[in-house]
Amino acid sequence: MQPPLRIALCGLGNVGSGVAELLVRDAATLAERAGGPLLLTHVAIRDPQRMRDVSLGRAHLGTNALELAADPDIDIVVEVMGGLEPARSLLRTALLRGAHVVTANKELLARHGSELRAAAQQGKAGLHLEAAVAGGIPIVKVLAESLTGNRLQALMGIVNGTTNYILTRMTRSGLDFRAALAEAQQLGYAEADPSADVDGHDAASKLAILAALAFDAEVDAAAVHREGIGAITAVDIAAAAELGHVIKLLAIARPHAAGLELRVAPTMVPMDHPLAAVNDAYNAVFVHGDAVGDLMLYGRGAGRLPTASAVVADIVDAAQAIRRGAGGRLFAAARPMPVLPLADVVSRYYFSIWVADQPGALGAITTVLGRHGVSVESMIQKGRRQQPVDLVFVTHSARESQVRAALAEIAGLAQVARVAQVIRVEGGE
Amino acid sequence: MQPPLRIALCGLGNVGSGVAELLVRDAATLAERAGGPLLLTHVAIRDPQRMRDVSLGRAHLGTNALELAADPDIDIVVEVMGGLEPARSLLRTALLRGAHVVTANKELLARHGSELRAAAQQGKAGLHLEAAVAGGIPIVKVLAESLTGNRLQALMGIVNGTTNYILTRMTRSGLDFRAALAEAQQLGYAEADPSADVDGHDAASKLAILAALAFDAEVDAAAVHREGIGAITAVDIAAAAELGHVIKLLAIARPHAAGLELRVAPTMVPMDHPLAAVNDAYNAVFVHGDAVGDLMLYGRGAGRLPTASAVVADIVDAAQAIRRGAGGRLFAAARPMPVLPLADVVSRYYFSIWVADQPGALGAITTVLGRHGVSVESMIQKGRRQQPVDLVFVTHSARESQVRAALAEIAGLAQVARVAQVIRVEGGE
Repeated sequence: MQPPLRIALCGLGNVGSGVAELLVRDAATLAERAGGPLLLTHVAIRDPQRMRDVSLGRAHLGTNALELAADPDIDIVVEVMGGLEPARSLLRTALLRGAHVVTANKELLARHGSELRAAAQQGKAGLHLEAAVAGGIPIVKVLAESLTGNRLQALMGIVNGTTNYILTRMTRSGLDFRAALAEAQQLGYAEADPSADVDGHDAASKLAILAALAFDAEVDAAAVHREGIGAITAVDIAAAAELGHVIKLLAIARPHAAGLELRVAPTMVPMDHPLAAVNDAYNAVFVHGDAVGDLMLYGRGAGRLPTASAVVADIVDAAQAIRRGAGGRLFAAARPMPVLPLADVVSRYYFSIWVADQPGALGAITTVLGRHGVSVESMIQKGRRQQPVDLVFVTHSARESQVRAALAEIAGLAQVARVAQVIRVEGGE
Repeated sequence: MQPPLRIALCGLGNVGSGVAELLVRDAATLAERAGGPLLLTHVAIRDPQRMRDVSLGRAHLGTNALELAADPDIDIVVEVMGGLEPARSLLRTALLRGAHVVTANKELLARHGSELRAAAQQGKAGLHLEAAVAGGIPIVKVLAESLTGNRLQALMGIVNGTTNYILTRMTRSGLDFRAALAEAQQLGYAEADPSADVDGHDAASKLAILAALAFDAEVDAAAVHREGIGAITAVDIAAAAELGHVIKLLAIARPHAAGLELRVAPTMVPMDHPLAAVNDAYNAVFVHGDAVGDLMLYGRGAGRLPTASAVVADIVDAAQAIRRGAGGRLFAAARPMPVLPLADVVSRYYFSIWVADQPGALGAITTVLGRHGVSVESMIQKGRRQQPVDLVFVTHSARESQVRAALAEIAGLAQVARVAQVIRVEGGE
């Protein structure tokens, strides 16, 4: 029998306690899968007063995370503390000494991912980050290892469970945004301050990590164009349904010669697209590769045990590499890549326009659209209880700048009361 | 720059030519992802007269696959010839000399998977088999590497594109089986002799490989209970829809204390289950793990480039291991595991019974069901153009032996013309 590998767990919150539970409970099976025993020798927590009720086997409990990172007797350092510091220093230290490091820290990777990759290369260390994005869904491994024979042409993800729950409730029960959010808060799916989820910040961080892996690019989460779901109304959801679509908060990345398209926004998806069947708090990532075609992974994007499942898989991967005498997996170099300006994004568009119900309105609007090169795929005129009426358009593929210019001009037409909504449409044509 | 790794490609059919295309076309990117150049040095084909129009770079073309397998100068042996021999000897030879081997050979792995795993262990070699099951869907890696922190409780797959295409056409357009099959044959989705697909043999082979990986078990494809889709009628599809279900050919594996449940059969799935949205020739594998919860992978389960995508990912994995000085990934030992007899399978059941339209029939049937411990969840009485009428039942979970005993007795009732159909129901309750 091989001597055990020594694991230090830094952080014992929600995910950390799940990791400890699995390591202790399934020690025998994990030993077999990892080619030898995995021993949880140390656990570092911030506040020993706030100790959780979780079995740690024979692990030492302390507050010395940074010392553990530097300790050459620790084979695998697991960082599940979250936050930027001391996590960043801890990971750098461990990587530079050549240790295998497992992290679930989304914020840190979205912000300092390139730095950590460089530290891993320098230390010939293993940087394992499956748990940092999309919880239990093994999208990191699939992007980094299973799609190497592809030129990826698109990545589209539902990567925030809170907003997907809210949109699912709005779709299935006709709730408006406020009511669905309140329900999500009651169920613990949404925070008291829901802006990180609802405004798309969380999804943007995840998209930055996924796009970096998918396109071997340096990606800054701050460069992701971001629109939240707060402006989506029950009327929009109903109009989408009438058009055979559902509205999802999609995180989209596509490579173009001019740069990387990066955006998080509520988006209409045809009902027969696989992403349309992703409901409740589930997540999914859909990719299109030139060889593999369409591929989608679906599962729990958050939660204690799903995320712990990803951490433990990374620990076993690290152990396998150590047992086989190998360092970390070699990364392709991340290239700096310009971000495609939003104005240059090409998409189909849905928009609704409130007009005075007069025959000239439709003609005036389509004239403006035509002049800006925006071609209409379908139009629905919806009677409303009172004036004005609602004209709903779906366009063929058009450039964002052209659509925005056309809509600005349309908003100024005498016959038009208001451009009420603009939502991009993906996954068709 | 690292010296190139030398690759021998054995087989240049549909998949093999796709692999050659990707290796030659994407040489620069692949070198980066693999930590150094990958050089296609040899291609072995059976019949040099039937040479394909594919660029092989500077590779030598020959008929000496077995020699290449034994050649210590070849770093990675890729077997995409199919069939049992000489593929089996070739893989054994390469593994026993410690080479990394990539194979897309489903039949061989379903039949001799344990032997090949043992050869890989003995030679400290790498056995890479992503392409052998579910084409471009990276389910092998996910089962073997991403779910190691889980006790898997169920695996349910749509793993045959032909039957999924036929069932999708029957569902969407009301075609009967014969018409949908004829259409699939015209489109090249189904063979002239469609029995390997339609009778579930292909799905059973894939299930054997997936179950072996998911449960670290020795699994023989011949032990899989198998029912084809030939007996599914347009009436069954319509009844399923009325009950909020669709019919899919599911390959199911579940571990029980008494043995491994293994079956391929047309099965009803609720419309809001992720497997229900898998249409046309697409495949998907759904698993439930105790930590990760529900997880599904969706994509192209067959085809030249999707399968080549999986082969190339395995080649890059092998190259990464070689570059990092490592042997193959260590497998957990496969355990012999008894197969659960079909009689002991527990499921929900749909069945339709044709009865003379007399008041006593329903009472007599439910009495028999009750006596056999089969509890009814819902019942629909369907008028038919003429007598007899059709009674449709869905049961709560029940044991196959009890259901079959009850139905045998029901078929003998004076009021009953015929037990017309029995289909298991999964994914609800």
